[in-house]
Amino acid sequence: MTLTVVGSIAFDAVRTPFGERDKMLGGSAVHFSLAASYFTTVRAVGPVGDDFGPDEFAILESRGVETDDIERVEGGKTFFWRAHYGHDLNVAHTDETQLNVFGEFEPKLSDASRTADALFLGNIQPELQRRVRAQCDARLVALDSMNLWIETTRDTLAAAIAEVDCLMLNDAEFRMLTEEPNLARAARAVMEMGPEIVVAKRGEYGAALFTADGFFAIPGYLLEDVRDPTGAGDSFAGGFLGYLDAEDPERASPETLRRAMAYGTVLASFNVEDFGTERVARLTREEIEDRYEALRRLTHFDLAVT
Amino acid sequence: MTLTVVGSIAFDAVRTPFGERDKMLGGSAVHFSLAASYFTTVRAVGPVGDDFGPDEFAILESRGVETDDIERVEGGKTFFWRAHYGHDLNVAHTDETQLNVFGEFEPKLSDASRTADALFLGNIQPELQRRVRAQCDARLVALDSMNLWIETTRDTLAAAIAEVDCLMLNDAEFRMLTEEPNLARAARAVMEMGPEIVVAKRGEYGAALFTADGFFAIPGYLLEDVRDPTGAGDSFAGGFLGYLDAEDPERASPETLRRAMAYGTVLASFNVEDFGTERVARLTREEIEDRYEALRRLTHFDLAVT
Repeated sequence: MTLTVVGSIAFDAVRTPFGERDKMLGGSAVHFSLAASYFTTVRAVGPVGDDFGPDEFAILESRGVETDDIERVEGGKTFFWRAHYGHDLNVAHTDETQLNVFGEFEPKLSDASRTADALFLGNIQPELQRRVRAQCDARLVALDSMNLWIETTRDTLAAAIAEVDCLMLNDAEFRMLTEEPNLARAARAVMEMGPEIVVAKRGEYGAALFTADGFFAIPGYLLEDVRDPTGAGDSFAGGFLGYLDAEDPERASPETLRRAMAYGTVLASFNVEDFGTERVARLTREEIEDRYEALRRLTHFDLAVT
Repeated sequence: MTLTVVGSIAFDAVRTPFGERDKMLGGSAVHFSLAASYFTTVRAVGPVGDDFGPDEFAILESRGVETDDIERVEGGKTFFWRAHYGHDLNVAHTDETQLNVFGEFEPKLSDASRTADALFLGNIQPELQRRVRAQCDARLVALDSMNLWIETTRDTLAAAIAEVDCLMLNDAEFRMLTEEPNLARAARAVMEMGPEIVVAKRGEYGAALFTADGFFAIPGYLLEDVRDPTGAGDSFAGGFLGYLDAEDPERASPETLRRAMAYGTVLASFNVEDFGTERVARLTREEIEDRYEALRRLTHFDLAVT
């Protein structure tokens, strides 16, 4: 199985109460690709500038991510994001965004990327997401977005959402999109827009899944050491879709979807243990399986003895 | 087994986006007692005014709650709380608090209340909690508190915490108490203060349990209809301690504690479905067991097939 992701490929400058980095590899397509690479073959699509060099490609390629469709724009600069976090690591404070090569990005997918089994439309302009979607015949398509696009390009975003199978947003974004304060009702409203699978990302509190079969909720993995939450949502999406793709996207049974939610939670938990891609880029599948089992133990309880 | 609770017995005036009540039965001891009454014999301790009449006693007594130690102060008025909630039901906005008979409360427990197997010290002044604690020889004592006491009577609260087995607060209160932003580290800091069992209440996101054996997390039960969150934390505590007391507080194995967390979650979920005590006062044990099983289904996932 193959999984294509389109999204930002970035340099991030991030400060948290636990340290800082001036310039580290980041972006939704990067975090997603690395997380998904532990499950399936991933093809990353997106533009970079000529400041994006062999060291950055090496991080992706060491995990087997296919980088042929990463378009290097000569004379351009890579997308740049600067942000800081206070003690509430659920809230990123953006200090600076430079779109750079992303301002002129026109997605052109190779045949290999077009024909992938699954597609993840990372958080970029909804119009770009639609153009990529139109080029692909993937059997499972998931989309992420953010408050900016809900506020500024709601109609285009709604059209993009109608064309995908799975929508992944955080709680507050679901409420903003649907104007429905109750999350379960917001999820139902999204299903009426098109997607059959709705995933609410809840930061340190975990995630919730809604389908026609019902709902499922999983808490975040409780960690004593959290250094940088940047990319956690994309790592969640990478673990979730990477596992689904490996299991065959057309066999997404309720049980498979639940396991995918758990793998997403596991990858997000590793993501936040260190800055940027530093932890997820050097995982082993065994570490992932061990934490999956630990997460299972820390969330399961017995039938009642009455 | 018998469970004594001391806490507020109140009239509440509450407005939410889904309705309002001018004067309804409330207070931590009331919500706790009703929830715990489905599991064990509960003895409620606290003062009321002579505006607290047969109708209010009847709500408690219809659930078998022992009300002998509810002290009726002639000429006094019952504790009164007025608040409203916006669409974020996690945040109560207090508009008015009248301590009334609570301002002069001096706990005097009957022998039956003193010798109960378990004791819940609801959210009242830490000095009062300590005086009640000193009168009881319960084998399991749990304490709830709030930001007000952390800010204004930190030393007395710390002394009260040191004398109990279990501390139940919300996430933000644990962080405020310990000055540790990471919840898992905050829980460890609390265990160093005395309690062996630490329960973090996380509103709609559920709850987390920390003991020397490790941690456990449970999401909230996802509901499409939430009308009033008032009392949810105390209903959680009532389900949790009521179940533990019924199972024998000295046999609080990790498995028993997890089931107690699930029962707490179930009782809290019923609490928020209607105003004040309206839903929890008219439950059946069968409804509780059905939702327990539903909660188990919506949180469990398989071993991975790799």
